[in-house]
Amino acid sequence: MALLSVAEALARVTKGLTPVDTEQVTLGEACGRVLAEDVVAGLTQPPFDASAMDGYAVRADDVVTVPATLRLIGEALAGSGFAGKLGQGEAVRIFTGAPVPAGADTIVIQENTEASAGVITVKEAGPGRHIRPRGQDFTQGEVLLCAGAKLRPRKLMLAAATNHAELPVRRKPKVAILATGDEVVPPGSELAEDQIVSSVPTGLAALVESQGGEPMILGIAKDTPESLITLARTGSAADILVTIGGASVGERDLVSAALRSEGMELDFWKIAMRPGKPLLYGRLGHQRVLGLPGNPVSALVCGLVFLVPMLHHLLGLQEDGRRHVEAVLSQDLDANGRREHYMRAISTWGSGGERLVAPLSSQDSSLVADFARADCLIVRPVYAPALSRGARVTIIPLDD
Amino acid sequence: MALLSVAEALARVTKGLTPVDTEQVTLGEACGRVLAEDVVAGLTQPPFDASAMDGYAVRADDVVTVPATLRLIGEALAGSGFAGKLGQGEAVRIFTGAPVPAGADTIVIQENTEASAGVITVKEAGPGRHIRPRGQDFTQGEVLLCAGAKLRPRKLMLAAATNHAELPVRRKPKVAILATGDEVVPPGSELAEDQIVSSVPTGLAALVESQGGEPMILGIAKDTPESLITLARTGSAADILVTIGGASVGERDLVSAALRSEGMELDFWKIAMRPGKPLLYGRLGHQRVLGLPGNPVSALVCGLVFLVPMLHHLLGLQEDGRRHVEAVLSQDLDANGRREHYMRAISTWGSGGERLVAPLSSQDSSLVADFARADCLIVRPVYAPALSRGARVTIIPLDD
Repeated sequence: MALLSVAEALARVTKGLTPVDTEQVTLGEACGRVLAEDVVAGLTQPPFDASAMDGYAVRADDVVTVPATLRLIGEALAGSGFAGKLGQGEAVRIFTGAPVPAGADTIVIQENTEASAGVITVKEAGPGRHIRPRGQDFTQGEVLLCAGAKLRPRKLMLAAATNHAELPVRRKPKVAILATGDEVVPPGSELAEDQIVSSVPTGLAALVESQGGEPMILGIAKDTPESLITLARTGSAADILVTIGGASVGERDLVSAALRSEGMELDFWKIAMRPGKPLLYGRLGHQRVLGLPGNPVSALVCGLVFLVPMLHHLLGLQEDGRRHVEAVLSQDLDANGRREHYMRAISTWGSGGERLVAPLSSQDSSLVADFARADCLIVRPVYAPALSRGARVTIIPLDD
Repeated sequence: MALLSVAEALARVTKGLTPVDTEQVTLGEACGRVLAEDVVAGLTQPPFDASAMDGYAVRADDVVTVPATLRLIGEALAGSGFAGKLGQGEAVRIFTGAPVPAGADTIVIQENTEASAGVITVKEAGPGRHIRPRGQDFTQGEVLLCAGAKLRPRKLMLAAATNHAELPVRRKPKVAILATGDEVVPPGSELAEDQIVSSVPTGLAALVESQGGEPMILGIAKDTPESLITLARTGSAADILVTIGGASVGERDLVSAALRSEGMELDFWKIAMRPGKPLLYGRLGHQRVLGLPGNPVSALVCGLVFLVPMLHHLLGLQEDGRRHVEAVLSQDLDANGRREHYMRAISTWGSGGERLVAPLSSQDSSLVADFARADCLIVRPVYAPALSRGARVTIIPLDD
């Protein structure tokens, strides 16, 4: 079977994926969730022309010539405005946020005045009127947050400020994670010789959680169709079933055969990608199935490249925080071969704010500790030429 | 009272803050938590010299001259090695990850061989021995993750791979959030005239949650000492009590007076900072008290500048993901005055990977919608000179 490009594989795994159902959550539950509908302002802010300063509300015509002496006729506070109307030669004491009294069109800053019993003297009118016009921040009915936005502190504060107590968000897409292998045991086990600790489900579950999904760790299936099918069925409620290992030819194609006997339509299984060549993708009823390699580094890189975009589609996420960014090589790089290479790399910051990047000395995909030390992946296209220090490359930041 | 610099204020609010207690959590609960102790590898990986390729284990001496014909004496799989010892002129079929048999010192890649009944012919020995030495990834007892690290997918995968099922993490620091104001009502209320929707607790709670703390929203106190004290006491279990509003002179110093009557030692309350001038800091028994301005933009900026570092101290966080980064101005900037200015700004990315930044046209701190649109804050030091387009500035990215 010919190798499939990463771009084509990505198009296939995300094709037809539509956002999951909507649920209503309180503001306190909404942090990190994805908005399912536009949010419209429930009020106008400020609700009236408001003073931007502490000082005196006056008529601009009265302070064209300074010093000007004006009669003090009242007070306007943020919570209670001045009820009357300001006439020629009059001033009203006013505080930040208070409604500008009828008849006034300018605020004179407190520092530019002198007050005595019932009278103020404006020494300097100063530039600007210091009035926040009604609706300067937002107007009732205005769309303030768009469907697909990830809800973070400031957006949530804005939703609260426009008088929303609950918001419609996408439910968390469920991702069932199924490890395989007779020799694979859960972390914390007493290890017999030849046993391998299962680490990929932990990494994938954290990735799913951090991307707004809900991981379901199904456990570790034995290398039999029965064991695989039994465990896979316990995850039938999930939107995506991820399997780990048992997918390469050397592993007798176990996962693929077992899931096909359950009705899975197999799509592809060899990607022009490094690390992570053996990859399985299919559909099992309503479920998408993604079969990842057993190697931890390969599995998590495939998770970043394929599973994260699938989750973003299910969430209807419109802004995904720049997954690919430009960086500058701080060392030379060899030409690349026929597979897109996701090189583990470490970045630093140049004095001009540019991101400098260098690959780790070993790109051996068996090095889990090295992978944890990396902070980005350099994406090397198929047959990319050798590059010199200073050249630009595309990176995927990790952990940002 | 003289204005206090931001740096001095930050030093005071974080002084003496030590990490909170440790709790043991499963790997599935650990995502985003902060490690309380170093994590040491529970095993050695690979546990033996292992093949890095599918092919044949041989003696290097036997393939100095090619083609070389060798006797095939057995097989080594990832799960079960070859029990015997390889002698002169012998080869063992081997798969990636399998232990290199005794006597062998080189793996010949499958593609460079031809096999027939009981015999293989090595056509090309190729460069490299394709052996992953024992412990190449990590060695039992080696410190792999350090106390203070934030646990993210790859670090958690590594912890699992070294056979840890649970990890010691800092408990989530509790932050009690107390709004104040007779005219302030919760989001979703039927609004009477002159009433203001409370939005800061929502923004701060999300900020606390996203930084690894546990928010406790206490509610909205009336402008009386009794109401303030009653509500503040319901948050006495919190590590930090944050109050909102009621702290400036114009608001009659309500919060400060009420909490001092409860035993709070007041530290400072005026900061050379824009937005966010009126700020209160004190200690109330075991609790730190941070009094933020009532203005939403000012409150959340103060939260970013003071509360987040306080949380990081309580968490013992050692890497905080670069809070301050360099960027390049894409427009001219005026000189700054006597207060450190945190300008709401929007950044874009230059073709060399540098971050270009421009402040929003209005820096009016009453504009909550504008604040939600910004993606970073430009930090302008006290009396910073005017800058031209292309100059470097320090920014605090938001939402990254």
